[in-house]
Amino acid sequence: MTSKNPVRVGLIGAGRIGSFHGESVARRLVDAGLVAIADPAEGAAAKLAATLGVDNAYTDVGAMLAQPDLEAVIIATPARFHTNILVQAAEAGKAIFCEKPMSLTLEDADRAIAAARSSGVPLQVGFNRRWDQAFAEGRAAIDAGKIGAPQLIRSLTRDPGPFGADPDKIPLWTIFYETLIHDFDTLLWLNPNATPVEVSAMADALVRPDARDKGFLDTAVVNIRFDNGSIAVAEANFCAMYGYDIRGEVFGSGGMVTMGDVRRSSMTLFDKNGVSNDTWRRDTEHFVHGYTAQLASFVNSVRSGDIGDAPSGIDARNALAIALAAIESVSKNAPVRLG
Amino acid sequence: MTSKNPVRVGLIGAGRIGSFHGESVARRLVDAGLVAIADPAEGAAAKLAATLGVDNAYTDVGAMLAQPDLEAVIIATPARFHTNILVQAAEAGKAIFCEKPMSLTLEDADRAIAAARSSGVPLQVGFNRRWDQAFAEGRAAIDAGKIGAPQLIRSLTRDPGPFGADPDKIPLWTIFYETLIHDFDTLLWLNPNATPVEVSAMADALVRPDARDKGFLDTAVVNIRFDNGSIAVAEANFCAMYGYDIRGEVFGSGGMVTMGDVRRSSMTLFDKNGVSNDTWRRDTEHFVHGYTAQLASFVNSVRSGDIGDAPSGIDARNALAIALAAIESVSKNAPVRLG
Amino acid sequence: MTSKNPVRVGLIGAGRIGSFHGESVARRLVDAGLVAIADPAEGAAAKLAATLGVDNAYTDVGAMLAQPDLEAVIIATPARFHTNILVQAAEAGKAIFCEKPMSLTLEDADRAIAAARSSGVPLQVGFNRRWDQAFAEGRAAIDAGKIGAPQLIRSLTRDPGPFGADPDKIPLWTIFYETLIHDFDTLLWLNPNATPVEVSAMADALVRPDARDKGFLDTAVVNIRFDNGSIAVAEANFCAMYGYDIRGEVFGSGGMVTMGDVRRSSMTLFDKNGVSNDTWRRDTEHFVHGYTAQLASFVNSVRSGDIGDAPSGIDARNALAIALAAIESVSKNAPVRLG
Amino acid sequence: MTSKNPVRVGLIGAGRIGSFHGESVARRLVDAGLVAIADPAEGAAAKLAATLGVDNAYTDVGAMLAQPDLEAVIIATPARFHTNILVQAAEAGKAIFCEKPMSLTLEDADRAIAAARSSGVPLQVGFNRRWDQAFAEGRAAIDAGKIGAPQLIRSLTRDPGPFGADPDKIPLWTIFYETLIHDFDTLLWLNPNATPVEVSAMADALVRPDARDKGFLDTAVVNIRFDNGSIAVAEANFCAMYGYDIRGEVFGSGGMVTMGDVRRSSMTLFDKNGVSNDTWRRDTEHFVHGYTAQLASFVNSVRSGDIGDAPSGIDARNALAIALAAIESVSKNAPVRLG
Repeated sequence: MTSKNPVRVGLIGAGRIGSFHGESVARRLVDAGLVAIADPAEGAAAKLAATLGVDNAYTDVGAMLAQPDLEAVIIATPARFHTNILVQAAEAGKAIFCEKPMSLTLEDADRAIAAARSSGVPLQVGFNRRWDQAFAEGRAAIDAGKIGAPQLIRSLTRDPGPFGADPDKIPLWTIFYETLIHDFDTLLWLNPNATPVEVSAMADALVRPDARDKGFLDTAVVNIRFDNGSIAVAEANFCAMYGYDIRGEVFGSGGMVTMGDVRRSSMTLFDKNGVSNDTWRRDTEHFVHGYTAQLASFVNSVRSGDIGDAPSGIDARNALAIALAAIESVSKNAPVRLG
Repeated sequence: MTSKNPVRVGLIGAGRIGSFHGESVARRLVDAGLVAIADPAEGAAAKLAATLGVDNAYTDVGAMLAQPDLEAVIIATPARFHTNILVQAAEAGKAIFCEKPMSLTLEDADRAIAAARSSGVPLQVGFNRRWDQAFAEGRAAIDAGKIGAPQLIRSLTRDPGPFGADPDKIPLWTIFYETLIHDFDTLLWLNPNATPVEVSAMADALVRPDARDKGFLDTAVVNIRFDNGSIAVAEANFCAMYGYDIRGEVFGSGGMVTMGDVRRSSMTLFDKNGVSNDTWRRDTEHFVHGYTAQLASFVNSVRSGDIGDAPSGIDARNALAIALAAIESVSKNAPVRLG
Repeated sequence: MTSKNPVRVGLIGAGRIGSFHGESVARRLVDAGLVAIADPAEGAAAKLAATLGVDNAYTDVGAMLAQPDLEAVIIATPARFHTNILVQAAEAGKAIFCEKPMSLTLEDADRAIAAARSSGVPLQVGFNRRWDQAFAEGRAAIDAGKIGAPQLIRSLTRDPGPFGADPDKIPLWTIFYETLIHDFDTLLWLNPNATPVEVSAMADALVRPDARDKGFLDTAVVNIRFDNGSIAVAEANFCAMYGYDIRGEVFGSGGMVTMGDVRRSSMTLFDKNGVSNDTWRRDTEHFVHGYTAQLASFVNSVRSGDIGDAPSGIDARNALAIALAAIESVSKNAPVRLG
Repeated sequence: MTSKNPVRVGLIGAGRIGSFHGESVARRLVDAGLVAIADPAEGAAAKLAATLGVDNAYTDVGAMLAQPDLEAVIIATPARFHTNILVQAAEAGKAIFCEKPMSLTLEDADRAIAAARSSGVPLQVGFNRRWDQAFAEGRAAIDAGKIGAPQLIRSLTRDPGPFGADPDKIPLWTIFYETLIHDFDTLLWLNPNATPVEVSAMADALVRPDARDKGFLDTAVVNIRFDNGSIAVAEANFCAMYGYDIRGEVFGSGGMVTMGDVRRSSMTLFDKNGVSNDTWRRDTEHFVHGYTAQLASFVNSVRSGDIGDAPSGIDARNALAIALAAIESVSKNAPVRLG
């Protein structure tokens, strides 16, 4: 039989995206195997482990990291725990895939980067859009000079509605730390020869105006000025009633590329109401191939020791710097200089 | 024969867009006739009059306004002359179609509005995008409640490249006064129940960086916050190498409408290079029907005395207020409150 | 005023399409005037004349043709009267625009062509799709060699549903004589260097199966083989619930062009049901510019004496030959050789 | 670790598509393992086995079938060998995935079906388009009644150019047996409640007219009439210079679905030449997910013993019956009745 010597991966965090990543390792990647799951919530790891046929379930991350055959971890806990767990995993010598945001402060970002470097373990961050075929082709077109120098750039995230979460359970500034962080990475990645110098943001609670007084924000527009003069706009909203809408646009001196389409497939229905297409309703549907490919890339880096072009701790720090500036800009209602 | 009793129109300004409007009256409108052309440049009016078969050419606007059978004027001079000519035409009792921007200051805008009101003449401003089929359908969908309350709005203008003009001959802030003024009107028109409260802008010379030191600007992004919390982004650039690109997008609590496509028609070519479409290369191609329809509407208002929903002097003033705030925001590098 | 010396046109047939053409002449063409309307149905011509402000209404075509100032006629009667009226108009020396089908037999087609030629009057046939922007661009791409030699060609007509007509009032074989005749012209026009040699057709009553026994047909597929080996498929149906769907596709040795889109504009709605576009629901909406342009071309030919590339009596005959072969093929259930 | 107990698969035929399927089993399916490869060409199986890390390579199919741990086979030899190998594998008790066409005669098809039935082994045929997302969604829409009763159906296959094969090495009628067989299955599958009753075909050598005299055919159009009156058109050509073009269209009493797009992704380039998209250039790119999914389905059936809705030997026979009728129709230049 094909010699399959899978990378032995442990999952930390058995929530929505953690479960999906666990399933990817267990069911969609031939070169990896899921050998452990940890989650502090009583029974959460065990339940997912049973579903996926995984032998070892933990409520304690440290215990999991001590499992001798473990080679790599996927960190998919709530964001505020990412850095500490990442450092712990690095010290245990495990290769690390960390969901975004890697950290919530620049200090933590530096600490995470240093820990991985000091342990010599690969560290990859979950900016999955880079593996989406359209976005990857867009970046390739930019690299090939097909649109000249970028001048106006756009990236947007609209999460599918209806919005059913409880605003009280969502940390302050989540739209910047967790949602727009994707767009900030995308904008930096699509403008590879430029450095951001200024950020100006507007945000509001339009989906849940009743939660505005508590500081909840569900809608935001962030403008970023780069040192080469180019101007980027990132935009997010928590409730797109038509589905999960992720798009990018880079306009340059020689042309433009656009990427992303909420339409689910080329299947088009023509009926008495007109012409219509179904849409992506979940990130895990839209990006199933991109999510899998980023883990395949990570798994490969565990063996090669090199993440190559995959998003690094530095990339996570760069995106975070924009998020922090955007938060400051909203707080002050003024542009904020970077660096 | 069909009883054609055309409205007798005079054209003021025989430049590019003036000539096109003159041609529309002479050749595309059955209910109007072009009876006079005025342009101070020696021979300009006469030359266009000869081409279009118009009997009367003037170098002096006052002389043209004295022509007894004249019922209406189209003002298509450089922008800085608009208000004075408009007031002059109003005082002469002529119905007025004025190209955008109607005025460059709020005082002039007020003066223009007052003059038309005092003379009781119709005053329509050249925000032609409202007649584009896609934009009109988008507004209708918004009015019908199909996307709920607007939250994130976008309007953009990208003029076709290559950019061949001389930056020295372009007045300062033209990108706001003359280009983005269209987008400002569009954004206000597509968000009909909201009032803008704050403007924040970034601009640069990216097409002609050599002219930046003289204050030339060819690229701009303007964010507008409305009193209902919605946030709009207007964006312009003078050099889209792929054609004349005009688009709008309104995202709301219930959905989204998008409008505009640079593709010229449904004719699609599939060849060894892939799949491709030709694009609109000129405003007068893209908007030939919209340009004609706005004049048809104007001509009708000459007879009815009422411009109905057509863009008015007040609309021109509202768009101008945004342009002025954007200019101030760029100058100060800070958000500017309106009103 | 612009010197408008309109061509004086008379309309014969005040039905649906006749009324539309009359309105085009009266309201959409600056170079033509509608000076007479004839229709044998009591009051029909008079009623339309009143609506359009036309002075002269007739129930007798001969009387109208005797009107001294009349220069040209538009024949929009039921198809079976076309040829005789055409010959009568030619003998009266009037320029002729005849709706499709010009004739129902090859003998009549020859008679019509001969009459126009002998009188030296322009004769243009109503194959309006040639003026649709997408189709015109497609033909231009073919002429420019962009797709090499045509090999597989498709043209389809789907009339908008629901189907409300009475099958008993529709002449036998109408789908070939009146509907597919457009597609036959399109296929010949898009394959300009080829001659059809064989026709094979299938047809049925699927929209109104209850009328099948009387010979009614509402659905048909016609294959045409050309002398250069290329194969064309024409397809029609009387009841497309999603609108008025007209498309063309030419696949060649070097690529392909496709033309036509039932979507009405670029305005796209995204809502809880997905992504959708409204559609064309009537030919007179979809082709308003093409219908007007074909008449503008005709009007011009009245003055120039030359129809240029506009569809001629010969073109009408060529399309009719395919229709007749398709009818024969259906009757025999066998391929039919042409010529 | 996740308990992976993969189905042990042997590949028969190490050519282009066989190698791709072998790679799918070895590298893209977690539930299957490639344990053997057989190919009579000296060294072919061994070479692929080395690439994919497979232990056992054979030049003799019988030897491979004797390998004790083998559970299932993929038959990807030249078409003329399919039936005999299939029967041999069935007699050896192996589950069978057979590439299309399963057989070249109805007798062979019956023999294959009988062998699998008699041995009680699953038999699935390689009609991969059913797993393409767009086609699957189209079928689901039809099943849900969204387009009413099918009336006009289209399926096309255009292989990517340039055409580099040697016509002399391509068996006669390959375009029907191997290419259009996909379209015949698609048309039957998209019209699930109808039975084909008549076939009429036209074919020619337009890509390689120099090979026409030897009976080579590279272009074909096949019309199929069903017992419910619906009419289908299948179309194929060996040389689409713009890529690998697979499309379907089903028009019904209530609407239409269209499926397939040669555009590779939503990444769209706008440059001085207009708007463009890259295209699919190979079946193994376009259908990588569909090809993998059909094998995942097959692998699952090995364990469950039931192929469910997957294409069966009966489906292969039904598509073959159309191919044979099309060949007869071309030979006779006449419609051919089925059944």
